[in-house]
Amino acid sequence: MEILSVLNLGDFPHTFSKLGMFPVFDVAYYIVSILYLKYEPGSVEVSRRSPVASWLCAMLYCFGSYILADIMLGSSPIDYFQHNSHIVLASAVWYLIFYCPLNLFYKCVAFLPVKLVLVALKEVVRTRKIAAGVHHAHHAYHHGFIIMVIVGYVKGSGVALISNFEQLLRGIWRPETNEILNMSFPTKASLYGAILFTLQEAHWLPVSKSTLILLFTIFMATSKVVMTARHSHGSPFTLVESWVCHLLFGSSLGGSEDDHHHAAAPSPAPKSKEELSDGTRKRKAKKAE
Amino acid sequence: MEILSVLNLGDFPHTFSKLGMFPVFDVAYYIVSILYLKYEPGSVEVSRRSPVASWLCAMLYCFGSYILADIMLGSSPIDYFQHNSHIVLASAVWYLIFYCPLNLFYKCVAFLPVKLVLVALKEVVRTRKIAAGVHHAHHAYHHGFIIMVIVGYVKGSGVALISNFEQLLRGIWRPETNEILNMSFPTKASLYGAILFTLQEAHWLPVSKSTLILLFTIFMATSKVVMTARHSHGSPFTLVESWVCHLLFGSSLGGSEDDHHHAAAPSPAPKSKEELSDGTRKRKAKKAE
Amino acid sequence: MEILSVLNLGDFPHTFSKLGMFPVFDVAYYIVSILYLKYEPGSVEVSRRSPVASWLCAMLYCFGSYILADIMLGSSPIDYFQHNSHIVLASAVWYLIFYCPLNLFYKCVAFLPVKLVLVALKEVVRTRKIAAGVHHAHHAYHHGFIIMVIVGYVKGSGVALISNFEQLLRGIWRPETNEILNMSFPTKASLYGAILFTLQEAHWLPVSKSTLILLFTIFMATSKVVMTARHSHGSPFTLVESWVCHLLFGSSLGGSEDDHHHAAAPSPAPKSKEELSDGTRKRKAKKAE
Repeated sequence: MEILSVLNLGDFPHTFSKLGMFPVFDVAYYIVSILYLKYEPGSVEVSRRSPVASWLCAMLYCFGSYILADIMLGSSPIDYFQHNSHIVLASAVWYLIFYCPLNLFYKCVAFLPVKLVLVALKEVVRTRKIAAGVHHAHHAYHHGFIIMVIVGYVKGSGVALISNFEQLLRGIWRPETNEILNMSFPTKASLYGAILFTLQEAHWLPVSKSTLILLFTIFMATSKVVMTARHSHGSPFTLVESWVCHLLFGSSLGGSEDDHHHAAAPSPAPKSKEELSDGTRKRKAKKAE
Repeated sequence: MEILSVLNLGDFPHTFSKLGMFPVFDVAYYIVSILYLKYEPGSVEVSRRSPVASWLCAMLYCFGSYILADIMLGSSPIDYFQHNSHIVLASAVWYLIFYCPLNLFYKCVAFLPVKLVLVALKEVVRTRKIAAGVHHAHHAYHHGFIIMVIVGYVKGSGVALISNFEQLLRGIWRPETNEILNMSFPTKASLYGAILFTLQEAHWLPVSKSTLILLFTIFMATSKVVMTARHSHGSPFTLVESWVCHLLFGSSLGGSEDDHHHAAAPSPAPKSKEELSDGTRKRKAKKAE
Repeated sequence: MEILSVLNLGDFPHTFSKLGMFPVFDVAYYIVSILYLKYEPGSVEVSRRSPVASWLCAMLYCFGSYILADIMLGSSPIDYFQHNSHIVLASAVWYLIFYCPLNLFYKCVAFLPVKLVLVALKEVVRTRKIAAGVHHAHHAYHHGFIIMVIVGYVKGSGVALISNFEQLLRGIWRPETNEILNMSFPTKASLYGAILFTLQEAHWLPVSKSTLILLFTIFMATSKVVMTARHSHGSPFTLVESWVCHLLFGSSLGGSEDDHHHAAAPSPAPKSKEELSDGTRKRKAKKAE
């Protein structure tokens, strides 16, 4: 018996977990992802100099999670590219965001109310991807719990985990940081989500998968919408993480050797992918045009 | 009915497309590839310090296209290394080019008339590889047209696409550029060739595969021979590309934000792999000995 | 008839080659590997800032050989992570070495007599891995002798071959060197071992596999114990290598263009992974705490 059945959600979680992602949610995912690419310093210039490199980066932003998960499971990294309609759709979004006359499309989707809706839709897709990744890995390795976590994690984080190499494609190299050293909120949440979905898959969590998908989607969408609206870098995990890390590793995450700062918030990960103040980003993107 | 049958080529395209590549054409391919490796600054020094690193680079130059295509299709990246005779042959060429007493072998094959023949033979192999790559991908993904283009592209471009990592093996790191950002002529031609062969495979091009192989080989061999003979960096695509890019992306490839230069030729990609003036290269290679 | 049967070793080689590695030998392998990770400058700081990055590096140190071999043979790179008990064991070792109160565990295992025993046990595992790698590759490619050597080599060398990318995970980038350019003793020995085991697998070496495993283990364990005890960088191969390289490549390994130094020892590979003086390392590791 499920403890969550008391919430009387009825069939809604099941219906929600069967909802098709293509094309509405997927398009929102592509738009938000490629928007973040355009915020990256230098990406507009690359789109002028080498459309091929810009297109490749856009594909990594849209399908990086599939590429990474396929690599992890030993399949062809470009296996997902057999879905021509998804690729064409993502390419159309890339074209509109980078080359639309008067920058019209960009201005529409970067308009805050529109963007908040798109961000929320993107998180729906992310949660689904984590669940699908864990399920896929479970199918291949029945008792490979660590593999399930890893595959779910890369499915949720996507391009962020290979941002060093994505930047290299655009001629930028920043070896001093990476997404593992300075995890942004979506990456951390993907890790925790992958752990939760793995526990569920192993029947150690007394929750049905559809309920977990619903709850995790609500958490992710709310968090990201609030963070985007407030241009915030804070993470809802800070307090718990700080406490757990102090207990387990004798220091808070990002803490210095100085013991007086143990309770301090993690360092703000200044170069992380999705957490840069949107304000700064927009200014940069505008300047580059 | 084929529109090209009017050319009355008879059986020649078919015979040509069945011609065995091993060993004559393959040896020419290895010689020209390893010659380009020797032109790379610092490669002669590496061959003295670490023969293993030098050999590995030579193998990447000779078999990089197979390695990349195998990775793209999810096979073992060293699958091609089961062909012991090819590896031994390429290793022999590497040994002769780098360690032959009095640098005799190098001097012979770098002698311009000889080199022009070898360059022409190399392009025969390149065209075959693109066609084989597209065909192989078609076999694995019947409707994966994008996958076909990608696999054909990596089969034609080979080591150029991973030149950053090939250089890293020799202790050199140039993150500011790569073959996607600054495409050289062979890389661009491979991309266009892969698109053509994919169209042919999808029956959207009213040409038989053997005719296309013949025509593309003639185009590639002529272009490369002329470019090698004239130490030229120009590309036959410049005008068309400039026009298409202006139409599609609002700027010429390699163009700046300055609108006055829209019609200008693409920037000459100063560090691209195969396009450096042979004169400069030879001087460098000689100095390094 | 075996030429080594005259040694009258009886059944010992066979018994030795069937000896289970889990858990005693494997734990020794994990301890020594993660010890070397802790010696790396900056790794203690990373363990404070990002336990996830530190854990990932530790996993690469422990299982890098499996990851690389799986990549080489086209399997899932995280295939080995299905062995939950091995991962948990390695994670426990990582936790004890980096976070044990008072640094007690580290002090115990880094105590020279203890460490010498562990180093000897580690070499037993390494030899087994090389043999297993060659055998595995032989199973997949019956006549792929070069593939056998490559797989055995990566199984023996493990993380050393990808040290540039392991360092990148910790925010460090040293493109000017790598393990192929400056091979350390274990990497070289793995290469020679892989060649020997391939010759044995191809029946070109009149020795049974178990005898070869025994002999190679004795050689490796003795060499590494002596080198660790004497904080030495010298390699037993120096003289032979110098002579062979002079013969084949016209220069000693690491030799300059200056012919007077042809007989000189190879340059000491100042940044190689496992060869740094343990004295320096300990000082660094201590300072970092």
